[in-house]
Amino acid sequence: MATDSEEMVRLGHGSGGELTERLLQNFVFPYIDNRWIQQGHDSATLPLDGSRLVFTTDSFVVSPLFFPGGNIGTLAVYGTVNDLAMSGARPKYLSCGLILEEGLPLKQLARIMQSMGRAAAEVGVQLVTGDTKVVEKGKGDGVYINTSGIGVLAAPQPIHPRQIAASDAIILSGDIGRHGMAVMAAREGLDFENPLHSDCAPLCDPVMALLAAAIDVHCLRDLTRGGLATALVELAESSHMQMQVHEDQIPVTECVQGACELLGLDPMYVANEGRFLLFVPANQQQAALEILQAFDVSAGSRVIGEVIGLVDDAGTADVILSNALGSERLLCRLPGEQLPRIC
Amino acid sequence: MATDSEEMVRLGHGSGGELTERLLQNFVFPYIDNRWIQQGHDSATLPLDGSRLVFTTDSFVVSPLFFPGGNIGTLAVYGTVNDLAMSGARPKYLSCGLILEEGLPLKQLARIMQSMGRAAAEVGVQLVTGDTKVVEKGKGDGVYINTSGIGVLAAPQPIHPRQIAASDAIILSGDIGRHGMAVMAAREGLDFENPLHSDCAPLCDPVMALLAAAIDVHCLRDLTRGGLATALVELAESSHMQMQVHEDQIPVTECVQGACELLGLDPMYVANEGRFLLFVPANQQQAALEILQAFDVSAGSRVIGEVIGLVDDAGTADVILSNALGSERLLCRLPGEQLPRIC
Repeated sequence: MATDSEEMVRLGHGSGGELTERLLQNFVFPYIDNRWIQQGHDSATLPLDGSRLVFTTDSFVVSPLFFPGGNIGTLAVYGTVNDLAMSGARPKYLSCGLILEEGLPLKQLARIMQSMGRAAAEVGVQLVTGDTKVVEKGKGDGVYINTSGIGVLAAPQPIHPRQIAASDAIILSGDIGRHGMAVMAAREGLDFENPLHSDCAPLCDPVMALLAAAIDVHCLRDLTRGGLATALVELAESSHMQMQVHEDQIPVTECVQGACELLGLDPMYVANEGRFLLFVPANQQQAALEILQAFDVSAGSRVIGEVIGLVDDAGTADVILSNALGSERLLCRLPGEQLPRIC
Repeated sequence: MATDSEEMVRLGHGSGGELTERLLQNFVFPYIDNRWIQQGHDSATLPLDGSRLVFTTDSFVVSPLFFPGGNIGTLAVYGTVNDLAMSGARPKYLSCGLILEEGLPLKQLARIMQSMGRAAAEVGVQLVTGDTKVVEKGKGDGVYINTSGIGVLAAPQPIHPRQIAASDAIILSGDIGRHGMAVMAAREGLDFENPLHSDCAPLCDPVMALLAAAIDVHCLRDLTRGGLATALVELAESSHMQMQVHEDQIPVTECVQGACELLGLDPMYVANEGRFLLFVPANQQQAALEILQAFDVSAGSRVIGEVIGLVDDAGTADVILSNALGSERLLCRLPGEQLPRIC
């Protein structure tokens, strides 16, 4: 594949958007070719001794390490647990790989580890194995954490974008943009009248409740790097579907809206760490909403759009965003980097 | 626990020796308390759907990224695969978490990923899930890689230091110190007459052969950070055993010996990435040696010592190193940092 004029890694390669996709397609996937990687999913469902095992990994490099609503430790537990939940798996075990920078105050490490321990206990997942490396001052940034997670599939089959079907309802689990803006505000030392709190939270409970109620979950996706817009575009592409989303149905708090305007950002592209999309058959949307709304973390769930249908041979998969005035625009992935090191 | 005057992370905290142990005991383990962490083992054996699943994680921060005999990519595959093998598990699946530094030449990334792909294919393990983050220039060092691994227990029971028994033979799988000295020479730009090559290699084949032959494997341990000496001391402590090791039975190449003398290092503490210790009943040592010597990676296997017996109540577990002249000294863990960022 051509590599354009990209000769070096740029910050945008970590955005979770278009550049990340090109980096993986050109420099990673050609060398690691198997059916799991080809699925382009956040986790892998593995055949092993008859288990229905789900395996996922995530590295966390958020800056600053501490922000309103959480820190890198809570994020490292919830983030990986959420990737498992989005595959329909009940999280069971986590690993923890620490890369510490020389000079990190040990008190900060203790606070982070305490948060990890609490977050794991809250979710009912066990941190079972770990590794610690130290790099010289100026070769890291306090601490980077990798967590890998093992879960057991609770859904009748692995949840995957290819199950998205025409006329599916698209449900969003709450307001968007809080995690990204909270981290950004903490990083830049911005002082808002109403302080922004990250939405970072575990998503397993509402997902397990949907599965226990035998809701026919077609797809789940958490909205991390790249935000709601990038997630929708990725899902449209993976499923070869056209989707319609209604802007006035997407909740954005005044506080996030104000901070976004101040910084020239679009909340549709801002990262979340406790929000997800659910695709279900239209005739189950009401049942699904009732289940989701019973949990604090997804109390703000609502239908934000629908799947129109398969794109025709000539067309490309796309996501149409319509506003209250009836005007429409096509969403695209996050083209470069909007907010580096948000998770 | 007291934290002495340590208020910040130091390079020595990443040595794999005494300081690493204290960091974990004081700042990590108090917050993550479960039976797996208490075992203090390199991997966790998990009950899951009746499987005998082994799970491990390792982050790699080696500097430089490329060295004679390998690169960070080969190391990231072999290192985690070896941790699984040391638990008696057949490696099945790996994850790959990349932390890229802005400015890393993409050609280097491609070379590293190619090495990972080749190493995985060689071992018969699948890289099934991954994650990529990017940090600003000056917040990383080219690339850091985390691999977590899942394996299936091939031994009748999890292999663990507590199975080490009095009069066990201690077998070393080959010459020591090559990985550490090869990386050090590459880092410092040292030019030796005979270039030093890392020993980095996968260890699963000889281990699986031992298990297939029903050798009663009491313990296995790969000799990474902290080298042979630190591994022996850790095993003596975990098993509450006293051990005797004969210095003149420990193979060190002239080249490694020379480089160590030049740099003032003790090869007993230098890292390896393709060497391991095996503990077996004395009456099986000959059978074990024959199996090991049939594989290139462990062709140099030999008995280097024996387990004397349980330490008495008053005594501390220790490892006695005797030399050809009959003089003896006690080994200790690597106290601080000898060679940072060796893996």
